[in-house]
Amino acid sequence: MVQSLNARLDTSFSALADATRRGVLAQLGRGDASITELADKFQMTLTGMKKHVGVLEQAGLVATEKIGRVRTCKLGPRRLEEETAWIEAHRQLWAARFDELDKVVEVLKTKEKFHGRKKRE
Amino acid sequence: MVQSLNARLDTSFSALADATRRGVLAQLGRGDASITELADKFQMTLTGMKKHVGVLEQAGLVATEKIGRVRTCKLGPRRLEEETAWIEAHRQLWAARFDELDKVVEVLKTKEKFHGRKKRE
Repeated sequence: MVQSLNARLDTSFSALADATRRGVLAQLGRGDASITELADKFQMTLTGMKKHVGVLEQAGLVATEKIGRVRTCKLGPRRLEEETAWIEAHRQLWAARFDELDKVVEVLKTKEKFHGRKKRE
Repeated sequence: MVQSLNARLDTSFSALADATRRGVLAQLGRGDASITELADKFQMTLTGMKKHVGVLEQAGLVATEKIGRVRTCKLGPRRLEEETAWIEAHRQLWAARFDELDKVVEVLKTKEKFHGRKKRE
């Protein structure tokens, strides 16, 4: 199913909103791992880890492959590029807004200085 | 209350996991707005918009101020720097993993070529 950009961002930001899931991504960045290894590493039940991996897989951030009885997890096809682009665009808007505020403060300061000088004169 | 980095990332990624809330942040990047204006803009009830703004405020992404009967919303103190840093670090790990895979593929291709040549000889 092809999701819209907004739906993809909803799913991936939601997947990232959990420390264990972020930890799993960092771990898989260092090498592939089975669900059992991940459960051990994060001191979690197998069922709990399966749920987390399921959420990450749904978001395309992790891919899994079952060989025999072992399910191996690796980094998925999505590389957070859309998420980075969204955050970056937003930060630029943000920075522009704060620059504007800085300018207003600068104008106010100049006026203040001018009025202060006039008062002293 | 001072939250840990992990708790802050949980809260902010969760706040970002909704198209309306991302839209509100983009809108406030263009200028401050009242809850009523935001509700109109996103064709939502006042109660619905209040909830979304509450989530964004909790995450420090929006700040609000009530003057008389009007609550004005503006961008909050947190500028997604920690979120960008996390994603960036993760993407670097990711890129390194894919580079490794590329190298493995390169080695396999070279071997393939070598064996191919040996067979022909």
